[in-house]
Amino acid sequence: MSETLKRLAAVIESRKPANGGDPATSYVARLFAKGDDAILKKIGEEATETVMAAKDARRDHDSSKVLYECADLWFHSMVMLAQFDLTPQQVLDELARREGISGIEEKASRKDDLAGA
Amino acid sequence: MSETLKRLAAVIESRKPANGGDPATSYVARLFAKGDDAILKKIGEEATETVMAAKDARRDHDSSKVLYECADLWFHSMVMLAQFDLTPQQVLDELARREGISGIEEKASRKDDLAGA
Amino acid sequence: MSETLKRLAAVIESRKPANGGDPATSYVARLFAKGDDAILKKIGEEATETVMAAKDARRDHDSSKVLYECADLWFHSMVMLAQFDLTPQQVLDELARREGISGIEEKASRKDDLAGA
Amino acid sequence: MSETLKRLAAVIESRKPANGGDPATSYVARLFAKGDDAILKKIGEEATETVMAAKDARRDHDSSKVLYECADLWFHSMVMLAQFDLTPQQVLDELARREGISGIEEKASRKDDLAGA
Repeated sequence: MSETLKRLAAVIESRKPANGGDPATSYVARLFAKGDDAILKKIGEEATETVMAAKDARRDHDSSKVLYECADLWFHSMVMLAQFDLTPQQVLDELARREGISGIEEKASRKDDLAGA
Repeated sequence: MSETLKRLAAVIESRKPANGGDPATSYVARLFAKGDDAILKKIGEEATETVMAAKDARRDHDSSKVLYECADLWFHSMVMLAQFDLTPQQVLDELARREGISGIEEKASRKDDLAGA
Repeated sequence: MSETLKRLAAVIESRKPANGGDPATSYVARLFAKGDDAILKKIGEEATETVMAAKDARRDHDSSKVLYECADLWFHSMVMLAQFDLTPQQVLDELARREGISGIEEKASRKDDLAGA
Repeated sequence: MSETLKRLAAVIESRKPANGGDPATSYVARLFAKGDDAILKKIGEEATETVMAAKDARRDHDSSKVLYECADLWFHSMVMLAQFDLTPQQVLDELARREGISGIEEKASRKDDLAGA
């Protein structure tokens, strides 16, 4: 896995209340303390902000905001994954599975798994 | 970067009309052919489906659906990135920048960048 | 209640399978036949489309698309209300309650209910 | 139009800066002061909260939260309409147009306008 995703997942994991995360000093610890709905609400918010940023990017001929908002969306996705005891590696494995990296099965599975991605 | 993200980004890139992507056989080529709004609509849809999957996961004590929907969300995020000529590596770089991996600056920048992640 | 909302709610109610709604000929009957998730997914979709339409409206100096997408959002909200055996009148009652239309209580309740709307 | 929608639209209109709305005392005046993106972000947030409330409603056999969240969604839709100088009456007119209330054209237009609602 990407070193960045691995390190970030470890930081997020360390922010869980059970691991000593402190809501007083950590934004992620506050999200964990609030629970599922606070985290899921962020997924909806960041998706909306990503869509707005993409619209602005076309208007302003500057795609940097798309990058920032996509990073926010992925970051909060990773908090959600941790909340459900999942890891970004598992998401990458699922994406790899769909792409059918593993040789002979690739062509056969690709059509079904990604609808002919 | 993760090999999976790199390979997937390359597959997505190859599906652009300018790179010979064929809407008749590829779902991603169809999204590119439809343009920004079709891709952005998918971001909103997949975010909503992720939220619903997380609610179901708690009910069913089975988090696998969260994984599938998060994979869908990241996949369509990558299509959006490609549409704006951005790469997942740039998103990872942005996340690494916020985490302040680079030594001495870490403590100083972390609070501002991730609000005390 | 608005005559339009009343009539529309009646049409939607008549599309429920239990009331003879036919998925073969009615879009709303198809949504009811698919169930909660199909209806909720539309709430997320229409919200995203409303946001995109508002962005386009500023760019194009034409707000008509906002109107169409907002109508879509309210329409699918009404399908959701019906799915939970709720009515638009109850939503209006809730809005009126918050506004505190009923005389003396108005000033007292307004601040709390709509956070000083 | 519904008296409630009419009164609420008037309250919202009075909260615009140009009409003397005061961000210091009014939540709606604050949204107007922040502008388009703050209002549109609320559409995405309230849609996500509505979807979560509907999931909870099934779990808890209590649909009241759906009502509250739908009221929030409609309320913020009305703020957005005001921001674009549109009215809820125009949304109702659009819904009525689709329903094809006006006699003879009803049957012909219904199929196209609401895809056989």
